[in-house]
Amino acid sequence: MDKYEKVFELAKRRGFLWNSFELYGGSRGFYDYGPLGSTLKRRIEQVWREFYVIQEGHMEIECPTIGIEDVFIASGHVGGFSDPLCECKKCGEAFRADHLVENVMNAAGTLSAEQLTQVIKEKGITCPECGGEFNDAYEFNLMFKTTIGPGTGRQGYLRPETAQGMFVDFQRLSRFYRDKLPFGAVQIGKSYRNEIAPRQGVIRLREFTQAECEIFVDPRNKKHPNFERFAGRELVLYSQAAQEAGEPVRMTVREAVEKGVIAHEVLGYNIALTNEFLTKVGIDPARLRFRQHLKDEMAHYAIDCWDAEIETDRFGWVEIVGIADRTDYDLSAHARVSKTELYVYVEYDEPKMVTRFTVKPNMGKLGPIFKGKAKVVADALKQLSEAELSQAEIKVTVDGEEVTVSSDMVEFAEETVKVSGENVVPHVIEPSYGIDRIFYGTMEHAFEEENVAQKAAESGLKGSGEEGEEGPAVEAGGEAEGEAEEETRLVMRFSSAVAPVQVAVLPLLTRKELSDPAKDIVGKLREKNLLAAYDDSGTIGRRYRRNDEIGTPYSVTVDYDTLEDKTVTIRDRDSMRQVRAPVEGIENLLYELIYRGRSFESAGKPFNF
Amino acid sequence: MDKYEKVFELAKRRGFLWNSFELYGGSRGFYDYGPLGSTLKRRIEQVWREFYVIQEGHMEIECPTIGIEDVFIASGHVGGFSDPLCECKKCGEAFRADHLVENVMNAAGTLSAEQLTQVIKEKGITCPECGGEFNDAYEFNLMFKTTIGPGTGRQGYLRPETAQGMFVDFQRLSRFYRDKLPFGAVQIGKSYRNEIAPRQGVIRLREFTQAECEIFVDPRNKKHPNFERFAGRELVLYSQAAQEAGEPVRMTVREAVEKGVIAHEVLGYNIALTNEFLTKVGIDPARLRFRQHLKDEMAHYAIDCWDAEIETDRFGWVEIVGIADRTDYDLSAHARVSKTELYVYVEYDEPKMVTRFTVKPNMGKLGPIFKGKAKVVADALKQLSEAELSQAEIKVTVDGEEVTVSSDMVEFAEETVKVSGENVVPHVIEPSYGIDRIFYGTMEHAFEEENVAQKAAESGLKGSGEEGEEGPAVEAGGEAEGEAEEETRLVMRFSSAVAPVQVAVLPLLTRKELSDPAKDIVGKLREKNLLAAYDDSGTIGRRYRRNDEIGTPYSVTVDYDTLEDKTVTIRDRDSMRQVRAPVEGIENLLYELIYRGRSFESAGKPFNF
Repeated sequence: MDKYEKVFELAKRRGFLWNSFELYGGSRGFYDYGPLGSTLKRRIEQVWREFYVIQEGHMEIECPTIGIEDVFIASGHVGGFSDPLCECKKCGEAFRADHLVENVMNAAGTLSAEQLTQVIKEKGITCPECGGEFNDAYEFNLMFKTTIGPGTGRQGYLRPETAQGMFVDFQRLSRFYRDKLPFGAVQIGKSYRNEIAPRQGVIRLREFTQAECEIFVDPRNKKHPNFERFAGRELVLYSQAAQEAGEPVRMTVREAVEKGVIAHEVLGYNIALTNEFLTKVGIDPARLRFRQHLKDEMAHYAIDCWDAEIETDRFGWVEIVGIADRTDYDLSAHARVSKTELYVYVEYDEPKMVTRFTVKPNMGKLGPIFKGKAKVVADALKQLSEAELSQAEIKVTVDGEEVTVSSDMVEFAEETVKVSGENVVPHVIEPSYGIDRIFYGTMEHAFEEENVAQKAAESGLKGSGEEGEEGPAVEAGGEAEGEAEEETRLVMRFSSAVAPVQVAVLPLLTRKELSDPAKDIVGKLREKNLLAAYDDSGTIGRRYRRNDEIGTPYSVTVDYDTLEDKTVTIRDRDSMRQVRAPVEGIENLLYELIYRGRSFESAGKPFNF
Repeated sequence: MDKYEKVFELAKRRGFLWNSFELYGGSRGFYDYGPLGSTLKRRIEQVWREFYVIQEGHMEIECPTIGIEDVFIASGHVGGFSDPLCECKKCGEAFRADHLVENVMNAAGTLSAEQLTQVIKEKGITCPECGGEFNDAYEFNLMFKTTIGPGTGRQGYLRPETAQGMFVDFQRLSRFYRDKLPFGAVQIGKSYRNEIAPRQGVIRLREFTQAECEIFVDPRNKKHPNFERFAGRELVLYSQAAQEAGEPVRMTVREAVEKGVIAHEVLGYNIALTNEFLTKVGIDPARLRFRQHLKDEMAHYAIDCWDAEIETDRFGWVEIVGIADRTDYDLSAHARVSKTELYVYVEYDEPKMVTRFTVKPNMGKLGPIFKGKAKVVADALKQLSEAELSQAEIKVTVDGEEVTVSSDMVEFAEETVKVSGENVVPHVIEPSYGIDRIFYGTMEHAFEEENVAQKAAESGLKGSGEEGEEGPAVEAGGEAEGEAEEETRLVMRFSSAVAPVQVAVLPLLTRKELSDPAKDIVGKLREKNLLAAYDDSGTIGRRYRRNDEIGTPYSVTVDYDTLEDKTVTIRDRDSMRQVRAPVEGIENLLYELIYRGRSFESAGKPFNF
């Protein structure tokens, strides 16, 4: 079993991830989040909201997952969102043509369908499933199609990204922010890609969750007001130059922006913010890097683009976030297709004097002569140059017909006017997160098989015999011994910020005199907004193991001493150490351990080590 | 403008609801949640989670919105999820055939497409849009269709409800709960219905959010362990009998269950829980009732079914929640189609002695004679009756061929065995919430146009002149006067539990010495998990109005006195009264006002009234 399989075995068994439609044999590219997975996923999303909505102030919106065709014509997805597809003539199995060709040549991804077909024929590539021949490769659009309304209805698509919602709502959003740049908006929701042959489990899904942020900035000012917050932060950058050298570099954000490695401050700030977010939810910093798009992979309109990549055991480096400066590409495209100007009026710090050529048709004179056509004649006159207007008889073409206007019917002049601002089409900085991949990343990076005996020896955990006189130590010590007997334990070292259960409360025995105070503690912890679970099934040792496997950072055990001295045992998941602390104020103590970085050693009276 | 239009005008202007794809002319049946709407909606969902996941312990799962065909064959949606459709021959417009017929006869909803076609012809019903004739009505399936994968792919549907996810995952869920009934699971997510002609705005959407809970119970025990919690609660019940009488009745949950008005305790408990939830998120109890399905509208398999209905200005009584006992219908249907037994093994309190007839084929003798077929012969023998097995020569049919088995090759007997439990197919109790309709309900029920002058007179609010000597009163009083000058104010009386902004913090002027302490207060409120907004744009009076329109329960104003005496003004949205309270501890004070029901009068030193 490789690590992916091990993580998945645990994920299925413990209710993190299940194959969708398992009852009916499943369907590739779809997964269900079970009870613990759903909680973990929501917590990751919640931390994301804290970063982007609460701290950064980019408000969240929610648009439909079904979109109408115009939107995706403008976005380019109708025209260009496709992968080259090859089908086996014999067994009918579908493959990505570029993946078939990858093994025999480099840069297969840059070839057209025609070129791929040629290579497949020349190299005699056949179906990996049955050895059959392939038909010609063609571009397969990856959007799921559907029909809105009855009959022939209206063409609809399941959105391939959430971003378009923010672009389509740009005018509404701009008004909401009182037309002041910069502003941003986010969306967390489902997106869809009808992958040709998803073979990478949860890494390549047909239905997935994105968290995307579109930040609209003034193109003339890409400094970030809060840049100093992250300027000194060191990042692992796999820049274009570093990729040529074959080795990522460590560099502060300030240095990267000053040297032009990262294009500007807004992008630098957002890359650092992503770094902060990912490590907060439990991505291992040692397996995280930011890779810059190479010139030939970057979209033609983009100024700069970076992917956060994490290292995985089976799939190598996997992209989980993209952070790009998309310029005015999206807004301009929507403006063109919708025939609606999309801009923000930006006031100058102080008004400017601007000289410009103005044409003033005399409607009093044009009206009697051109009647109903006077307005179009006037509009046509406004388009003429000074030279054309200087003729005695001015010629204009109206509705395909040339008409003559005498020079007294129009005035023109160079004027100097005071201009207090201008219309600006904002540039878009887009951090785009793949939540399912981050979810998987937190699971794989949290996963550990630990040799318990060795761990116990290293950390000085002792058996119970030596503390025989102390009541609590006997019981808990007995369990510690029980722990040491098993050779390895599976432990999910989830960050407290995302662990689906933060505290397990365990009565030593399933008896009312112990379960009642245990349930009281659960109540107090929930009151404090901690995710607390009551668990009385099986021996204490088994319950500790179960909670290690689901990544519960702390377990609280209620035993008979609790009834006498009003203290409980708190066990730390990672070190397996235990302390004894009073029931009174236990909710505050755990809150501090989880959210305030309080050290476990300070949490109570150590015993058992 | 009716109330719906007024609510919508405010909803659009303030960023609650926008028409989807407005830039491209929109598309019926789709709405966007703007920044405040998205927050309000998420808070409603969050309260729902507190009720169902945290309190009731029904864990949340997340399944794909795209489903494979088998699932919806089993659920009955492929066969029967349709509305009768009529298209105009002239203009092509589509209509619900039953809606067309509703005006000329009762119970149009119960007619078949053929019957509707006949009525339309007989009564000469023509297109309301253009007067054209209609073609024949036919059943239109309301699921959005799509294709999974390339080529002819696999038929997929956008789920019409989230419930099927819990049924398909039943075995996984049962294992998660260690096979102990009752247990439940919930899902909050998008569902889709390709409505023929959605004409009721946000009430009838093609894409909508559901929160559904499936509670799996032992069919032999529909008592609720926690029934006493709600037993004395009075509900407005529009039962089958009450509907005949034309008047809802008020009744306690206990009385309703005892009299058989509500089928059993689990259903009674869940109706009361729904009542509790809806009033908590701001549905007006005076505009809420529970209507029982009539015998002819209830699904044939259901035992009892109730809809929570709210009264709206334009649409009358609208269903927003359904609570049903669906028996074992769903699990049995999935078991049949998937050919997988779906049950929970339930242990008896003590083992039972059961007498049964057992057949034991002697494989040692069958083997040499029937060779490879011995196993199927043995299986066939097990199906025979005592009489058939008592023959000297026993005949069985195997693979369409009759074979003869001699009597010494099989033993049979009546045996009495100890049985310690049995397999039970659970019944399903399903509370199903339409989140978008609840969202609209909270908006319409919160909406009020208030005559400010009258209100001021009633509540004894005074102008500022009389308190001229007191510094803070001058400024704030001036604003109160400003408030009184406008004739009406729009105010959204959102419950604090769901208001998208809970506290607005307003520096009197946009100057650093005031904005800095205001921002500090925002920080402290957020630390306390309160939704706080900083707002410094426009006069205080305008900011109060804006916050009334978005339903902010409390506004905190920082003025020059704040710098001297470290106090701020807190204004109560509903009464427009103001008190002066210390900055120190302001976050706890507001927390208590919002979550602990502390009275506003006790919040500080009153002034200005």
